[in-house]
Formats: sequence, C-alpha cells, structure tokens
Amino acid sequence: MSTATSFSVNHYLKEHIRTVPDWPAPGVQFRDITPLLQDPKVFRVLIDAFVHRYMDRALRPDVVAGLDARGFILGAVVAYELNVGFVPIRKKGKLPFTTVEETYELEYGSATVELHTDAVKPGDRVLLIDDLIATGGTMMAGRRLLEKLGAVVTEGAAIVDLPELGGSQRLRDSGLPLFTLVDFAGH
Amino acid sequence: MSTATSFSVNHYLKEHIRTVPDWPAPGVQFRDITPLLQDPKVFRVLIDAFVHRYMDRALRPDVVAGLDARGFILGAVVAYELNVGFVPIRKKGKLPFTTVEETYELEYGSATVELHTDAVKPGDRVLLIDDLIATGGTMMAGRRLLEKLGAVVTEGAAIVDLPELGGSQRLRDSGLPLFTLVDFAGH
Repeated sequence: MSTATSFSVNHYLKEHIRTVPDWPAPGVQFRDITPLLQDPKVFRVLIDAFVHRYMDRALRPDVVAGLDARGFILGAVVAYELNVGFVPIRKKGKLPFTTVEETYELEYGSATVELHTDAVKPGDRVLLIDDLIATGGTMMAGRRLLEKLGAVVTEGAAIVDLPELGGSQRLRDSGLPLFTLVDFAGH
Repeated sequence: MSTATSFSVNHYLKEHIRTVPDWPAPGVQFRDITPLLQDPKVFRVLIDAFVHRYMDRALRPDVVAGLDARGFILGAVVAYELNVGFVPIRKKGKLPFTTVEETYELEYGSATVELHTDAVKPGDRVLLIDDLIATGGTMMAGRRLLEKLGAVVTEGAAIVDLPELGGSQRLRDSGLPLFTLVDFAGH
C-alpha cells in the first residue's frame, strides 16, 4: 500500500490556464497561458516538464528554435537549461540578416515566417517550440524552414494541444513527433 | 603581481553582436543580437550577466516584465533563474484578457503596448527587460503600464544601449535606473 503523495504536472498546469471566451472572435475559447508564467512555481513546473524530457541523452537537441512570440518565452528558457543555443523563427520583416522564408495558409489569408540562414547548421538536431498547437500551420512552416537549412527537427513541443483542430494529427502524420502537456476539447 | 586571466563579459558579448548595415532603412546600422543567443556559451554568459546582478537581495525583483518580442527571450530566462514570475508586455491586440494600454510616438506614427490588469500587484518590484534601448519610447511606455497597476519599476535592463539616440539618458532623467551591457556609438 502506497503512501506517496501524487502530483500530476499536466493537471496542475491545466488548472492554471485561463480560458477567455469569444476572443479573438465570437465562439472561440482562447486558452491563455500567461497565468502559467506569472506565478513563479507554476512557471518552474512548466519549464521543468520540458527540461526533464529533453535532458535525456536520446532526446537532447543541439538547438532549440522558438516560434514568434510566445514560443520565445518557453524556448529560450529550455535552451538555457539544456546548455544549447536558441534561435528565433520570426514573422516576416523582423530578422535583419539573410533569411529563408515560408508562407502558409491561415483561415483568412496567409502568413510568412523567416529564419536567419546561419541560425542552424546542416545535421543540427532541433527542438521546435511554441505555446499551442491549433491547425499546426506555424509549426509546419517552422519545420520546413529548418529543413531548408539542412537541420533535422527531432520533435515539436507545446504546452497546449487543441486536438479537434487537427493540427497535432497532421504534424504527426507528416512524421514529426510531438510533445504537449495539456489538451483542450473544443476551440 | 597578478597571474589571473582577465575576462570582460561586456567585451565578449560586444564581439558577438552582428552589425547589419542599412537595415531596416538606409544609413541605419542595425545591432543584431541573435548571434548571442545561438551560441550556447555566449547565451549563457549573456543571461548570467543579468542573473548575477539581480540575484543580490537588494536588487532582486518580485516580477520580471519583458517587452515584445526580443525582451521575452531574455526576460523569461532571467525570471526562471531568479525564481520569480514573468509577465509579457505586448503590442496591442495580442493579450486576450482585460488590459491597460499606453501609446507612444515613433519616428513616423505611433505604437501601443498592453499589459494584463492582473499581471502585477500593487507594490510589486518589477525589473523591465528589452534587448536594446534606442529612443527609450517602448521602455518608458512599459514602465507607465506597470505603474498604472501600482507596481514599482526598480530598474530597466537591456543588452545594448545606443546612447547617441538619447533614450537611456531620457529614461535615467525620468528616475529609472538602467543596466546595459554593451554601448554602440552611432545608430
């Protein structure tokens, strides 16, 4: 008979995500991760959930890439803790040096993301981080950017998955392993 | 007679900043901090320069606030290392919950930044972080947002100061202590 006290990281984190109804449009339940960041304990539990996974030798990346802009918050801390470099994947027009770019479709219109051409080297194993996976379009575009430069994206990671939007399934079907901490039904 | 090997953090970091001429406009020398992030050692030296300062009891903040978006990269890691919370100050339209906002002048036009109303509590001591101080407009607006919520901005920190643009002088004249690691003449 066990007397250990059980603690579910996933449940703890989910409790601290704020749902904002009808934002940015009527009918959308926005999952706001800022409360995870502003409480020192929750922030630490969040970051450590990623660090504990990626410090294993088999999963340790050479580089962490973060998606503009909430992916910068997670990705930079995870990179620091793993003692690897951090590279930002940015919305078009933000990076000053020579870049590669990828355009992807949104519900209305399209978006373009960029990466500095010297951000990664051929063969680098890259962990790609964002806060949330919805349609998966941004993460897919980020992966293509890294692959254009010869890097290998070993895994995509995010705090939240919205599985009903199909993005995580599409990413997995394309051959990208994913690691997420919290699922929400609906969107 | 000393046999110690000297190491200047400031000089080391400055050597790794890339100057991109004529970006984003002719005549501008853009100081690109992405090379500081992508090398694991330089990234660690950079972050630790902030952590070593703010881990002192007298300077330790209750909260770190980062300015959208490069300030997220530095601010999040410093907050994690200090075991305090991180709050993002964002360009208008990105934060889903109730916000306070501040508009400030740019060379052409204006910009607005926002902060969640529950991001800080009255009396919180806040360290405000960005990558670079040019005219100081963004940092000044960020400070006003935090003060609207009753917080006290104890210091502004950045990697790079461009003193000829006058921003750091204006911020200091307004009573905000500043900590920067690298100066560049010209702009």
